Amino acid sequence: MTNKKNNKAVWNTRIKKKTSSLFQRIGSSLAIDKQLYKEDIVGSKAHVEMLFKQKIISFKIKNKIIYGLDKIEKEIKNNKFIFKNEYEDIHMSIEKRLHEIIGEEAGYLHIARSRNDQVITDFKLWMKVSTIKINDEIDKLIKSIIKLAEKNIDTIMPGFTHLKNAQAVSFAHYLMAYIEMFNRDKIRYNNNLDFLNENPLGVGALTGTSFNIDREFTTKKLKFKKPTNNSIDTVSDRDFVLDFLYSSSVCSMHISRIAEELIIWNSDGFNLINLSDQVVTGSSIMPQKKNPDLLEFLRGKTGQSYGDLFSMLTILKGLPMSYFKDLQDDKKLVFSSYDNIINSLKILNEVITNLSPNKKNMLTLAEKGYILATDLADYLTKNHSISFREAYDLTATIVNYAEKNQKNLNELTLDELKKFDSNFNKEVLKIFNLKNSINSKKSFGGTAFSNIKKMIVKYKKIL
Amino acid sequence: MTNKKNNKAVWNTRIKKKTSSLFQRIGSSLAIDKQLYKEDIVGSKAHVEMLFKQKIISFKIKNKIIYGLDKIEKEIKNNKFIFKNEYEDIHMSIEKRLHEIIGEEAGYLHIARSRNDQVITDFKLWMKVSTIKINDEIDKLIKSIIKLAEKNIDTIMPGFTHLKNAQAVSFAHYLMAYIEMFNRDKIRYNNNLDFLNENPLGVGALTGTSFNIDREFTTKKLKFKKPTNNSIDTVSDRDFVLDFLYSSSVCSMHISRIAEELIIWNSDGFNLINLSDQVVTGSSIMPQKKNPDLLEFLRGKTGQSYGDLFSMLTILKGLPMSYFKDLQDDKKLVFSSYDNIINSLKILNEVITNLSPNKKNMLTLAEKGYILATDLADYLTKNHSISFREAYDLTATIVNYAEKNQKNLNELTLDELKKFDSNFNKEVLKIFNLKNSINSKKSFGGTAFSNIKKMIVKYKKIL
Amino acid sequence: MTNKKNNKAVWNTRIKKKTSSLFQRIGSSLAIDKQLYKEDIVGSKAHVEMLFKQKIISFKIKNKIIYGLDKIEKEIKNNKFIFKNEYEDIHMSIEKRLHEIIGEEAGYLHIARSRNDQVITDFKLWMKVSTIKINDEIDKLIKSIIKLAEKNIDTIMPGFTHLKNAQAVSFAHYLMAYIEMFNRDKIRYNNNLDFLNENPLGVGALTGTSFNIDREFTTKKLKFKKPTNNSIDTVSDRDFVLDFLYSSSVCSMHISRIAEELIIWNSDGFNLINLSDQVVTGSSIMPQKKNPDLLEFLRGKTGQSYGDLFSMLTILKGLPMSYFKDLQDDKKLVFSSYDNIINSLKILNEVITNLSPNKKNMLTLAEKGYILATDLADYLTKNHSISFREAYDLTATIVNYAEKNQKNLNELTLDELKKFDSNFNKEVLKIFNLKNSINSKKSFGGTAFSNIKKMIVKYKKIL
Amino acid sequence: MTNKKNNKAVWNTRIKKKTSSLFQRIGSSLAIDKQLYKEDIVGSKAHVEMLFKQKIISFKIKNKIIYGLDKIEKEIKNNKFIFKNEYEDIHMSIEKRLHEIIGEEAGYLHIARSRNDQVITDFKLWMKVSTIKINDEIDKLIKSIIKLAEKNIDTIMPGFTHLKNAQAVSFAHYLMAYIEMFNRDKIRYNNNLDFLNENPLGVGALTGTSFNIDREFTTKKLKFKKPTNNSIDTVSDRDFVLDFLYSSSVCSMHISRIAEELIIWNSDGFNLINLSDQVVTGSSIMPQKKNPDLLEFLRGKTGQSYGDLFSMLTILKGLPMSYFKDLQDDKKLVFSSYDNIINSLKILNEVITNLSPNKKNMLTLAEKGYILATDLADYLTKNHSISFREAYDLTATIVNYAEKNQKNLNELTLDELKKFDSNFNKEVLKIFNLKNSINSKKSFGGTAFSNIKKMIVKYKKIL
Repeated sequence: MTNKKNNKAVWNTRIKKKTSSLFQRIGSSLAIDKQLYKEDIVGSKAHVEMLFKQKIISFKIKNKIIYGLDKIEKEIKNNKFIFKNEYEDIHMSIEKRLHEIIGEEAGYLHIARSRNDQVITDFKLWMKVSTIKINDEIDKLIKSIIKLAEKNIDTIMPGFTHLKNAQAVSFAHYLMAYIEMFNRDKIRYNNNLDFLNENPLGVGALTGTSFNIDREFTTKKLKFKKPTNNSIDTVSDRDFVLDFLYSSSVCSMHISRIAEELIIWNSDGFNLINLSDQVVTGSSIMPQKKNPDLLEFLRGKTGQSYGDLFSMLTILKGLPMSYFKDLQDDKKLVFSSYDNIINSLKILNEVITNLSPNKKNMLTLAEKGYILATDLADYLTKNHSISFREAYDLTATIVNYAEKNQKNLNELTLDELKKFDSNFNKEVLKIFNLKNSINSKKSFGGTAFSNIKKMIVKYKKIL
Repeated sequence: MTNKKNNKAVWNTRIKKKTSSLFQRIGSSLAIDKQLYKEDIVGSKAHVEMLFKQKIISFKIKNKIIYGLDKIEKEIKNNKFIFKNEYEDIHMSIEKRLHEIIGEEAGYLHIARSRNDQVITDFKLWMKVSTIKINDEIDKLIKSIIKLAEKNIDTIMPGFTHLKNAQAVSFAHYLMAYIEMFNRDKIRYNNNLDFLNENPLGVGALTGTSFNIDREFTTKKLKFKKPTNNSIDTVSDRDFVLDFLYSSSVCSMHISRIAEELIIWNSDGFNLINLSDQVVTGSSIMPQKKNPDLLEFLRGKTGQSYGDLFSMLTILKGLPMSYFKDLQDDKKLVFSSYDNIINSLKILNEVITNLSPNKKNMLTLAEKGYILATDLADYLTKNHSISFREAYDLTATIVNYAEKNQKNLNELTLDELKKFDSNFNKEVLKIFNLKNSINSKKSFGGTAFSNIKKMIVKYKKIL
Repeated sequence: MTNKKNNKAVWNTRIKKKTSSLFQRIGSSLAIDKQLYKEDIVGSKAHVEMLFKQKIISFKIKNKIIYGLDKIEKEIKNNKFIFKNEYEDIHMSIEKRLHEIIGEEAGYLHIARSRNDQVITDFKLWMKVSTIKINDEIDKLIKSIIKLAEKNIDTIMPGFTHLKNAQAVSFAHYLMAYIEMFNRDKIRYNNNLDFLNENPLGVGALTGTSFNIDREFTTKKLKFKKPTNNSIDTVSDRDFVLDFLYSSSVCSMHISRIAEELIIWNSDGFNLINLSDQVVTGSSIMPQKKNPDLLEFLRGKTGQSYGDLFSMLTILKGLPMSYFKDLQDDKKLVFSSYDNIINSLKILNEVITNLSPNKKNMLTLAEKGYILATDLADYLTKNHSISFREAYDLTATIVNYAEKNQKNLNELTLDELKKFDSNFNKEVLKIFNLKNSINSKKSFGGTAFSNIKKMIVKYKKIL
Repeated sequence: MTNKKNNKAVWNTRIKKKTSSLFQRIGSSLAIDKQLYKEDIVGSKAHVEMLFKQKIISFKIKNKIIYGLDKIEKEIKNNKFIFKNEYEDIHMSIEKRLHEIIGEEAGYLHIARSRNDQVITDFKLWMKVSTIKINDEIDKLIKSIIKLAEKNIDTIMPGFTHLKNAQAVSFAHYLMAYIEMFNRDKIRYNNNLDFLNENPLGVGALTGTSFNIDREFTTKKLKFKKPTNNSIDTVSDRDFVLDFLYSSSVCSMHISRIAEELIIWNSDGFNLINLSDQVVTGSSIMPQKKNPDLLEFLRGKTGQSYGDLFSMLTILKGLPMSYFKDLQDDKKLVFSSYDNIINSLKILNEVITNLSPNKKNMLTLAEKGYILATDLADYLTKNHSISFREAYDLTATIVNYAEKNQKNLNELTLDELKKFDSNFNKEVLKIFNLKNSINSKKSFGGTAFSNIKKMIVKYKKIL
């Protein structure tokens, strides 16, 4: 094969004219998929080892190919590899370069393999590693949250429903809720690892191959768990891509909920938290401003995650079996979502590390909104032999009275209370204490300090 | 409490004016959530059993409440229950009716419980059962596909990439690809069962409760696996809703791919399959038409699934902790997606059962498009001591020659072939046989008949 | 034609077996499209008038058909029409009933018409009216906002960027921003009216008709503006559906932004607005709660709108020409989005009408966050002969000083200020006045009271 | 100001610590928004011209700033400008560089302006030009389609509904349907130009400015049509972004429908079109393949468009007034969608130019599927004095007979036909002619050759 020939696409014997230069430029995936060069080389090496083991190629050819591939890996690592768009993708680029280095015998590399199975193999290898990296980043974040929670077990704040003061709660309990979310994210990513661990290599273009290959061998070599079951499905399937994008969307959504909450708490209206100067930015025109840009960045990035997921769902909708070029964008979307989620996790970690509660303001706010009304209703149910609905109703009447007289519940005298129910005695006054209220919620999962401590210990053990 | 009082919302002591009648009508979730009445009653019964066990309520009150709840269940079952929109939802409707039946003591039911945990409990109970029903429906579909596959192991058709003839394949192998998809769907639904099996009951409004409740007891009673860890997270979390909607979206997307394929095969251009009259419809104006409406219905329904998923993702984006009314649509979306996926699975089952291949047309089409070119290239690699790339190139030259002379590959004479490579001998002619081609793909997951048979046996065992 | 025959689908001569009962139940669109009965009858009447005018049918037949259609309209209006799912949709149901009423001659109604053009005609007629209804509802809402704005021109509040206090602003100016949004929504809906005004009737199944019909006649009769240009495009096109769903999504998004803002202002942290008891709801367990459920309902409903839009986008992706059953869901999605947006507009109107500002709290909050810093920087630029960047920098230094000394800017003495720049004189103290600050923003579109008044007058004139 | 100072962010007097280096790297929008450098400079020049005209800055300062800006424009054009991520965005980068070039007086540029209005101004200027470029590209595509249509007015093919042969149609009529779609796309993009033509410059951070600026002047200078009405709305609004992304989504969807159709027609099953070698690609393993990669690329790219739209919708959902960092991604999404749609239009143009119909195969396929059945039913209605429904039914019976006897309709003898209706005479045989059938559809918008010609003339005039 002459060098001139080598400049063409592999199929230039069949397709005489060059692909339109416009499409060569736009349709080339090289800019995206060169990220997969390592996986492509690892995959090719496993493939030729297997071909040799199965006596499909000779010892000499195998070694030559591996020598060439190693050389290429170094070239790329050292930025000495020249990428040409006319070779369409990283896989063809490497095969072409191999040919330049070792000559004709490069032509043995693609025995019993198609780009269809080759690309998915590379991609799955990349996604396996990346999934684990994400879970590591989540672990780091969880650790930072635990650290902040440990310092704030007895930091009292109002818990909100409908963004209105609802019941007293520990700031640490709030933080531990975030950990539950991220824990589910890890499970979701891990579930996808099961699919990622199915080895596509060896299914060929779509029907398998007549060469006597050994898919168990490459499975082991590449640390997959088992070969895929059906060759047509294997080249058509992108569920593992969707599962990744979906897991990232849910994780991103969790982050947006936390970010929203912290943005509200950081407002001048609430003023419940401090963000250190490292995690705020200023205004071009308003000299006083300290804006929680990082949090807004995080909240906005949910858009990217959702968009990537919906892009892939759109691509797959109504696409018949088996391979189509439409699928090529899978890599772009996964790389985008991966960067997005890794960055988001890191930035949230940075925010959490640079955040401290305004304990005084938290307490002040917790004293508003008749936050202990449920405690009073519970007290009445326990001590006044009335049903919860009656207790609820009586409490509502007392709250109305207090509101009208511009008092908090703990500012009501026993005499005032007795007007509503003569059974009241001074025991009731203990109810009107935020700390007691929090500590009384000892039911499993409740905000009592002891519960929080146990949960922190539990999560520390896991990590 | 007078009857007059009973006509009001529970909070009418606190909120004096009635909610706007417009919102009472539009904001009421009753039309949707009355589907949950059974789960609500089961959940309430478990709750009062626990309250009694924990000595929070008396034996007498417990029995009275359970008597009332049983009565209500019968009323609803027999359509004798009067639903009133002013009671906002099924949960309030039942509590109000309980009050009418057993009087004041109904007020003990809501001790140590909030609608927040109550609703999620009901909903999770419903979703557990529904998830299992979906997986049962998938199993039925898989069985139908296997049945069709068994009859078509040696039915030869062209396999497609880019919708162009690629390589010869067994129709059964195509069908078995569908099974791989549906098998992944089952795994995805099952993964969500883990989350659905966490019991929310007992987390109260958002902080837990000061009553000495036993969440392990209700967990066991309601066949959950463990109580949820954090009360704030529990009332905020709708991940299990998303996971359900997402699993349904992927399953729906799989169905759309199959539907698209079958619609194409059913066209007058391809004419590869027959659909019996039961699964086609006619036109209002064109007397000859037999349209694959069911398949188009299936393909289009992906829109519904995707839409439901993105509705819920939108709702959750940027929503702070903990409960907000925004979340109310979760049930509408899950019910919609559930109906959609169950119906889609049933209809696809009906189509598969009423479908037969046009074996003759399949074979005729398989003979087009030089479908055995890869086999020839593989043959050359195996027998002519040349690399795959050289073999590929030589084959392309032969295909060009054949095309120019308007011949199929199997119509080329040995003499013609020898012009391209003098090493050719009559052995090569065996290559030009579709059946041999299929059968040669013996690599694991390939289309060889023996592979397909083994895979069918494997799946029959699993079901 | 015997009655027995009439019980079948029109195509039962061609398709012998009945459609699967499962699909008859699920695939029937009757439950949805019976909403179109009026438009279907109006459209059919225009069609037969035209057929008569063009001498395609006789005077007698025309009259008989119109008599029958009028009768059917009354039956449906009076709930005396029996809908049967086996007739698939409203159009077939009416044709079948017409046959029952007037006999054989009903068979002339469908000359030169297909369900394909018939359905789109009905649907466009419905959407035209509905689009106008939505715009009317937006106008009502705008009027309510103007009313509230008029009362609050000099109500001072902090304007926010990043939810942090930024600059002083009139509450009315905030409200007028909402009007700009809704005004754009009206334009968007109106733009779609241009597409809705193209008459599809007469394009037949997909190629037009050989009957000598007059599409200008039906166009005029049905108050369209012109007939569509291309028959294949006409039966394939659902752009007008997308445009409607998209307009509703944007309008819904606007509502979600307003709702979010008001929810935050209604929190105990901000407490900037009062919602009357008619637009709040209570809690099942917390006796003190008054929750802004209506606002949360509005915010959450964006999910529905977005979901409907993406359902339709999904359906249309990759769908070849011309008609497919996939398209059937267009009506369900439009009806859903229509109800959603009409209800949302009405509820927001109700909220706005029941909302009043907490002027005192607004003012108190406006005094926080060094909100007049930009005014100071502007003053320095105007009066101290320094560039804006220098003025900005100097202001930042002063803000830092004030913060450290726990003072507001207006609490700084002239002596203190002079330490930063000896040029300061007592004129600067006028700057530290919120009202002055607002009133100084006289640039077009700025928050100065005079601007707001003019804008109110302008919008009142338009409406 | 010392150089050292210049290395910091403008707000470093207020915010002492540097923003986290992680966020500086990730949160910087420079890589994206440097595309806006020209618009930023044009906008700044208009701003200082206005400041001078209004006597807010001196002639000397104005000139110095303009000199500096011109210099910067040249630097960027010639790749001599050094971009530093620590300056966050293109706007700050230019202001900083201006300071290096002209010194202190650069500080006058930002008088009466905020980045909030500055950025939107730049962005709208960019979008106006880009919108027009897209419409130009659509025009080019329409011209190519017309060219192909002109050559194929009498090319006969089957028209499809449900992908089944429906009625005979001209290939040109099919192509002209595409033009209707693209024409609507142009209208949609143009509608957004109205919003893009509202000038945001001068609204400041969110409340306007106290400087005596003239927004009409900058409006004229920058070729906007009018200034925006409300300062808060202006900095919050991204409707014009959504409208762009939505228009692109619909256009992309249209392209996906055409691509799908052409992919199907290019299959070995249909084989209705030829794609020249320039617009196909080969396989890595199957030597015979010629794949319509470009078309699949186009179809798949709908994913990108939909994803971008949904990203922005997600970002805006529930975002309160006014500016938040979340909004920063608007530019990334618009640039992505712009590239995507421009490339897609160009590639489709390339495909259309390289496409030719297989007239013979089109005709052969058109003869299948009893495509003239409607013509027969119409004939019967016109000539046999029976209603359309009777004619339809009779035709169905005849089709069944023909099918059973494996004949086409035009292969039936008059005697055979007379068995079904004795009124048949030899006139009916003229009906069984595809060309006659097409030509008979003379209703406006129908496929008759004369109609197509007129429509082509009409569109040629418009362009």
